[in-house]
Amino acid sequence: MKTCFLHARTFARLRPRLKGLEAAVRFVTLDDAGKAHDAGTGTTLDTLPPLDIAFGNSDAFYSPSVREFMTAILKSPEFDWFQSAAAGIENPGLMMIGQKARRYTTNHTQSESMAEWALWQALDFLREGPAHRALQAQNKWRRVKAREIRGSRWLVFGYGSIGQSVGRRVSALGGDVTGVRRSPGPAEGAARIVAPDTLMAELPRADVVLLCPPHTPETENMANADFFAAMAPGALFMNLGRGALVDEAALVAALDAGRPAFAALDVTRTEPLPPDSPLWQHPRIVITPHDSSDTPGTVEGADDTFLANLSRYVAGEPMKHLVDPAAFKT
Amino acid sequence: MKTCFLHARTFARLRPRLKGLEAAVRFVTLDDAGKAHDAGTGTTLDTLPPLDIAFGNSDAFYSPSVREFMTAILKSPEFDWFQSAAAGIENPGLMMIGQKARRYTTNHTQSESMAEWALWQALDFLREGPAHRALQAQNKWRRVKAREIRGSRWLVFGYGSIGQSVGRRVSALGGDVTGVRRSPGPAEGAARIVAPDTLMAELPRADVVLLCPPHTPETENMANADFFAAMAPGALFMNLGRGALVDEAALVAALDAGRPAFAALDVTRTEPLPPDSPLWQHPRIVITPHDSSDTPGTVEGADDTFLANLSRYVAGEPMKHLVDPAAFKT
Repeated sequence: MKTCFLHARTFARLRPRLKGLEAAVRFVTLDDAGKAHDAGTGTTLDTLPPLDIAFGNSDAFYSPSVREFMTAILKSPEFDWFQSAAAGIENPGLMMIGQKARRYTTNHTQSESMAEWALWQALDFLREGPAHRALQAQNKWRRVKAREIRGSRWLVFGYGSIGQSVGRRVSALGGDVTGVRRSPGPAEGAARIVAPDTLMAELPRADVVLLCPPHTPETENMANADFFAAMAPGALFMNLGRGALVDEAALVAALDAGRPAFAALDVTRTEPLPPDSPLWQHPRIVITPHDSSDTPGTVEGADDTFLANLSRYVAGEPMKHLVDPAAFKT
Repeated sequence: MKTCFLHARTFARLRPRLKGLEAAVRFVTLDDAGKAHDAGTGTTLDTLPPLDIAFGNSDAFYSPSVREFMTAILKSPEFDWFQSAAAGIENPGLMMIGQKARRYTTNHTQSESMAEWALWQALDFLREGPAHRALQAQNKWRRVKAREIRGSRWLVFGYGSIGQSVGRRVSALGGDVTGVRRSPGPAEGAARIVAPDTLMAELPRADVVLLCPPHTPETENMANADFFAAMAPGALFMNLGRGALVDEAALVAALDAGRPAFAALDVTRTEPLPPDSPLWQHPRIVITPHDSSDTPGTVEGADDTFLANLSRYVAGEPMKHLVDPAAFKT
């Protein structure tokens, strides 16, 4: 019998869907107070048994007991499989777990919520949200000319699961999507796929530029002064990837110079963004606190990924979204 | 030869597309200063010739010379065809033109822009736009749980061209759309079509309720205290139809009582909304000044409708979106 470790809230939510697996898997939970339980019997566990499997989702990682959760995995003598709720592995804690676990699987369902974030920010920009709100604040009825996603040109740098989730939506709304990535197209939701070395030629044509590639030495600071100078003056810049993709001082200077017109950032170079950062009060920057995936739909999606992989694990079938162990070598 | 009347700016924009029609149609323009010209020769016209055709679009109706534009049509001895850029005819000026013209055609392409307005407002509500902006204003990095259009339940009252434009988009984004109208379904973009008499039973299930029916004696004040009391506490109410559909005092009372959660209104009972209206500063109301269709896409759509009908007119073929003359009888 294998022992599977998960947050107590996650187990309570999934319990009806775990029936039938309880013969093959013992579930051990950790709550927000750091207390462990045998989930089947309800017994409090003073010391944790050796763990084989863990589901590392938002319940666990945004819990006050996150440190205990991590430590329990890292101290298990032979840890077999970790299911992450995240798509990326670029995080010191996840890297350590990846080095420990025999198998590590990711989850890509949060791209749906993130894609709706991109639509939200693009619509608020194209529909002139700030101008409309300023007029309402003054009780002023004055029509404002707006633009539409229909007919707009999008350049999506990093055309993986997030990029495709965005592309499918924008195309369905009548926008024109160019995806930028190394592997050639076609790809769902994109009218064209172009190679990264064409970026500077593509930038001037885009109404909306979205970054969502992984953070690598090649993408570090890719959005710099030259990048912004190549954008159209009326364009929107968005970052759903990592803060390190953007030279933030260059972004502020570019917005002040009028090109691009506006920026929406769900990620920043330092997170939490320090209270004294000039990004907060810039009139042409929207900041959201890395919460673009923070919806019930994302929680359900990660649950579904975990349960599907757990069934495969128990049945001895190949699991999905397995990460090559070489990715965790440092 | 027929004489077609249109705004000078419209003619300038359409000129390349009117070649070939100039043998059959004389184009006469009116500019913002109220000056008329023969568009073919450029000659200033001190008095207008009898008009046969007119294209009444936003260039004409939002011009300082709108009164001269209307008067010229109404004073023509035999006026044959009016192409409106609007979908509805519920306007005293349009009613007078409808009584005058032998044929009157409408345009429904503005529903595309209006549908994007509905997505914009729904996303800003579901993604917690006001909470995010309040946190940014205080330089505070604090995650906010949001919701998605994916999986949300929409009730669209009035499932004509606007309703379907909304329904297509919401369905493409993974939402569940119920359309309410008299004629039975199926209809594009809606999972179900229900009859208006089921409204009160449908309201409690909806996350988003959108009104976009015509204004008739049956729909006047349809959104009243009982209507709002039947909505779910966490739901969004939107009006893209006419202000007279909503009992505004009942809406404010309902929002203050916490049901529905929020309202987005592109139309109000009195327009412009008076500066002393309590709607302006209500923390859970967004007002836009009846500009949901005010995009370049809408202007192009109306141009396309006019040109397609003009070709049919010249060829003696049946025109599209013809209004039954009985609709203009008072």
